[in-house]
Amino acid sequence: MQTLGLALMGTGRMAHVYGPKIGAHPGLRLEVIYNPRITSAARVADQYGGRAMDDLDAVLADPAVDAVVIATPTDTHVDYIEAAARAGKPIYCEKPLDQSLDRVDRALATLDSHPVPFMLGFNRRFDPDNSALRMAVQNRGIGRLNMLMSWSREPSPPPIEYIRASGGYFVDATIHDIDLLCWIAGERPVEVMAAGSCMFDPRIGIEGDFDMTMTTLKMASGVLVHINNSRSCAYGFDQRLEAFGDEGMVQTLNQRDDNLVRWDKTRTAAREPLKHFFLERYEQSFYNALDEFHAAVTGERAPSATAQDGRAALAIALACAQSAKSGQAVALEFK
Amino acid sequence: MQTLGLALMGTGRMAHVYGPKIGAHPGLRLEVIYNPRITSAARVADQYGGRAMDDLDAVLADPAVDAVVIATPTDTHVDYIEAAARAGKPIYCEKPLDQSLDRVDRALATLDSHPVPFMLGFNRRFDPDNSALRMAVQNRGIGRLNMLMSWSREPSPPPIEYIRASGGYFVDATIHDIDLLCWIAGERPVEVMAAGSCMFDPRIGIEGDFDMTMTTLKMASGVLVHINNSRSCAYGFDQRLEAFGDEGMVQTLNQRDDNLVRWDKTRTAAREPLKHFFLERYEQSFYNALDEFHAAVTGERAPSATAQDGRAALAIALACAQSAKSGQAVALEFK
Amino acid sequence: MQTLGLALMGTGRMAHVYGPKIGAHPGLRLEVIYNPRITSAARVADQYGGRAMDDLDAVLADPAVDAVVIATPTDTHVDYIEAAARAGKPIYCEKPLDQSLDRVDRALATLDSHPVPFMLGFNRRFDPDNSALRMAVQNRGIGRLNMLMSWSREPSPPPIEYIRASGGYFVDATIHDIDLLCWIAGERPVEVMAAGSCMFDPRIGIEGDFDMTMTTLKMASGVLVHINNSRSCAYGFDQRLEAFGDEGMVQTLNQRDDNLVRWDKTRTAAREPLKHFFLERYEQSFYNALDEFHAAVTGERAPSATAQDGRAALAIALACAQSAKSGQAVALEFK
Amino acid sequence: MQTLGLALMGTGRMAHVYGPKIGAHPGLRLEVIYNPRITSAARVADQYGGRAMDDLDAVLADPAVDAVVIATPTDTHVDYIEAAARAGKPIYCEKPLDQSLDRVDRALATLDSHPVPFMLGFNRRFDPDNSALRMAVQNRGIGRLNMLMSWSREPSPPPIEYIRASGGYFVDATIHDIDLLCWIAGERPVEVMAAGSCMFDPRIGIEGDFDMTMTTLKMASGVLVHINNSRSCAYGFDQRLEAFGDEGMVQTLNQRDDNLVRWDKTRTAAREPLKHFFLERYEQSFYNALDEFHAAVTGERAPSATAQDGRAALAIALACAQSAKSGQAVALEFK
Repeated sequence: MQTLGLALMGTGRMAHVYGPKIGAHPGLRLEVIYNPRITSAARVADQYGGRAMDDLDAVLADPAVDAVVIATPTDTHVDYIEAAARAGKPIYCEKPLDQSLDRVDRALATLDSHPVPFMLGFNRRFDPDNSALRMAVQNRGIGRLNMLMSWSREPSPPPIEYIRASGGYFVDATIHDIDLLCWIAGERPVEVMAAGSCMFDPRIGIEGDFDMTMTTLKMASGVLVHINNSRSCAYGFDQRLEAFGDEGMVQTLNQRDDNLVRWDKTRTAAREPLKHFFLERYEQSFYNALDEFHAAVTGERAPSATAQDGRAALAIALACAQSAKSGQAVALEFK
Repeated sequence: MQTLGLALMGTGRMAHVYGPKIGAHPGLRLEVIYNPRITSAARVADQYGGRAMDDLDAVLADPAVDAVVIATPTDTHVDYIEAAARAGKPIYCEKPLDQSLDRVDRALATLDSHPVPFMLGFNRRFDPDNSALRMAVQNRGIGRLNMLMSWSREPSPPPIEYIRASGGYFVDATIHDIDLLCWIAGERPVEVMAAGSCMFDPRIGIEGDFDMTMTTLKMASGVLVHINNSRSCAYGFDQRLEAFGDEGMVQTLNQRDDNLVRWDKTRTAAREPLKHFFLERYEQSFYNALDEFHAAVTGERAPSATAQDGRAALAIALACAQSAKSGQAVALEFK
Repeated sequence: MQTLGLALMGTGRMAHVYGPKIGAHPGLRLEVIYNPRITSAARVADQYGGRAMDDLDAVLADPAVDAVVIATPTDTHVDYIEAAARAGKPIYCEKPLDQSLDRVDRALATLDSHPVPFMLGFNRRFDPDNSALRMAVQNRGIGRLNMLMSWSREPSPPPIEYIRASGGYFVDATIHDIDLLCWIAGERPVEVMAAGSCMFDPRIGIEGDFDMTMTTLKMASGVLVHINNSRSCAYGFDQRLEAFGDEGMVQTLNQRDDNLVRWDKTRTAAREPLKHFFLERYEQSFYNALDEFHAAVTGERAPSATAQDGRAALAIALACAQSAKSGQAVALEFK
Repeated sequence: MQTLGLALMGTGRMAHVYGPKIGAHPGLRLEVIYNPRITSAARVADQYGGRAMDDLDAVLADPAVDAVVIATPTDTHVDYIEAAARAGKPIYCEKPLDQSLDRVDRALATLDSHPVPFMLGFNRRFDPDNSALRMAVQNRGIGRLNMLMSWSREPSPPPIEYIRASGGYFVDATIHDIDLLCWIAGERPVEVMAAGSCMFDPRIGIEGDFDMTMTTLKMASGVLVHINNSRSCAYGFDQRLEAFGDEGMVQTLNQRDDNLVRWDKTRTAAREPLKHFFLERYEQSFYNALDEFHAAVTGERAPSATAQDGRAALAIALACAQSAKSGQAVALEFK
């Protein structure tokens, strides 16, 4: 297996997700940790290896850097994408592309004029259960698909600073379900309707955001989609899918740390709590996504989650946000 | 237990549901079967007992008739309600009250001026699992309620004649979920959004109706509600509820005819098919509803499903239909 | 349906099980309550109807008594069987026939010389789930049967007086599993091995009995059977079966009062406690057993649980007791 | 982490289990592949790395060999143990130690006189679910342990040559359950009773062996244990545990390749087939066992599965075999 040297752009939460996984991947090498503040880069390099660098041009000119992984704050993604594309470096970019469609379109234009392998970090596509469900749907294991449902309820609300920078619940979180469900259905919506409330953390409401939403997508074929999101969930990170077709249904069950069943005076046939949050629940998906990126950079196959997928998911998420604010359905059109 | 003589109005599908159950109830007696066509009434009377009658005035004047059960075609409910109320007879009326709010208001006005015990046949409230879930919610077993979900997927589409007379999917079927969920939540929506498709039976689409819908209700408190309806379901009559609160979740499981689990080469831990349709799944609920009606007529307690509940459910269902056609949210206000 | 007048012999625990169910059965009438102490008989007659009588000869001579239900203490069963058989009255007898094979053989001889319809109260055969599992086995839904397992764990130990009169755990309780499993397998054991401990209630050990046993039956065909019994069970009345064949497995699940699933901080996907004890768990089986007895008395079909079945189950249970005491296997032979 | 050089003794089935896992372990290095036939050793060395050697003395004298992993045919285990112990090399030995207690005692004596870290490959102890269940028992999550049950049903019978060399079903397979259950219970049996049949593969019966057994262990404390074994299982590799205590029960569920649930016309809530066999089901346990061995060799902690454990499991398995042949219980005593 060809070993690729990667520059990890950014030193925040997602950098700590990718850093150790790149190090453990047999075909990847953590070559550079980049942050404009060299001390931040050095701290992460100490932890996971790689050279700390603070000079973007030097990183992108470095012949040991075969590709970049962008895990910086969302509002810097487009700048790094453009710089890397111009430098001819393949790109793995954490979702979302950006919170603004205009800026996303700018990035798409740059990628058009400077084509490099590009993969968006919609890691949930790479989860074994999610992709097994998609396979069952695509193989017509349930006949023709008619309805899709997704639950994504987080264990507890993030800090209010995170909310402020998040672009709103739909763009920050629902966008994952949107991408996953469009990918499973094999099509995109012509209309969205969304409703939101703030029931768990009043500070989120003060920011003008929701902490609980229900979203309906109506696909071109007539398939109906429901997305169920919550910023809080007492029993853990609730992640479920349900695909309903004319010959049956297939669901994914929540995953747990063990396969024990407990019986006592008050509860019978009980299972242990769910996996805590996305790092635990989707750990394998990040490894699989890096496999996919390796294959994309080495030219084995085209990356499955494209920049156009990222644009579409953002456009849908923004339409959901608009619908939830206005109380009106929003029509969408995709070429 | 005081025995009440009942006049069963109507000889159609629902009359065959109520007839034998009235006969088996220790406190009820099937006194009269009424149909303007005496031969129809006679056929049902032969089957379940009671005297066949075709003269409405005579039925309502009959001293052996303590109360009436209206199981006639929907568009005649209001006429029979008014006649029975004027005659001072307690009324059990199959849902929906009517398909028109104007006519429902006329019935409500008559019930106001001629007050008699009145109970609407929202039988799903009387299902043991549904009411156990409501109890869990009301007892704050999940903390504060935040989201409610209901699945009601029927095994196969009804005849097209039924569709034509049904008032549309929302008024015919979703109305059950609407009533049940408002009853569980203890409140009514301020806004509804609905989307529908016709994917199973194109003849339903030709009639301008849907055979598959997703409905969102936003309650006054902020609680969000999802209703998932389908006119077809390969694996039986899928009936589920999910209540999500800030301290946990409670769900109802589908019921089956036995408690066997099967393991073979292709499937493991498999359960048998679901109960076929509403007669099998909700059989007990009809008995329980008749208990409640008995208690209402004998004055033990006020009936729990009132004419006002029926009006509210109809108003919400009509708003759903309007939203699904227009693609726009519809605001609602209840006094 | 022909209505049969029954004499209920006995006024103890099982009389309170059968009394109300006979009263509710459309083809049975509680004609007589018999107890040598007329005050006991009168108390039960007040509760469930029927005439209190204390004269056995008069009961058996009474033309309104079409059949007898023997629910007296075990050591009197044989006497009542003989008296009823001589009087030509059909007999339903609660299990076990007796604790002594000699006395059972005496009863069998009397039934041979005075043949009357005779049915033994092995009610678990009449449980819908147990008989559905048997049907699956007999229909070769799992191919050829290879292993059978039964769990019967009671919620809490009975009073020590009950233990003293019970004939020991195997004769009192395991006998139910033995009969059920022989009936499902369609054959009887050639060898039994049993082991017992006293872990829950030391008073049971002082009586020389066990409160926890594991029993192995080896059937003539080679089928192996495991029976798992306990006098105590923290989570309710645990009743399970497992049939393993060369093409698959079928199991019965424990039954519960509702179909709710609960999720909270500490337990997920939890079900409510099990049905409390045999009255709740096997309620339906007693009704079904009375149906069978009705059919036996009216000559519609031969009773399915015969006196010979009762003798076989007792012989096997006694062999289990012997094996558990001696620590040695016991061979059995059935004609 | 200190890296240990290992000599893998043997090139058969279990060598192919350990070879790649040693290679992937961060603290282990596959230094030598040993087989008296150098061509066999070379083939495996080509596959997984390491130097092929056929000279035992040279292997044991090699300073780069820090420890040996014995994965040779069972009847050679003792010879290799003795040679390695005399050479002062720490030993990981695949189970069983041997099929003869005399030879095992010879090995134990050698280990006494030449003490080296020694670990027996009872890999099921290192399975995450099995050890989570043990933890629940030891932490008194079910109160005091009263009963233990283990199911181990293999997907299909091994070749008849394997059967012939296996030492019989109890010594080959039941020994795994015996070790696991004694480890969970924290004690050993005072009496065993076993019954066996040959129902799946008549060739196994011709060899005088069973393909289906039920075993009862009675522990010193009174705890009762059931072991359920089959050489064939239509629905996969059935691996379950059940621990029953005075305050509750804990069970392990079978593991599957995905968390999908499927609903169609004939089966509802069905899960996919089980993991195929021990390589798939217990993959993680082998990695964890190698971790434990690493810790044992580096002196971090004493190995948890000792040679004495191996002797005890063999003694119990042999007693089971004797009981199943004689139809009599066998008493056991452990110092």
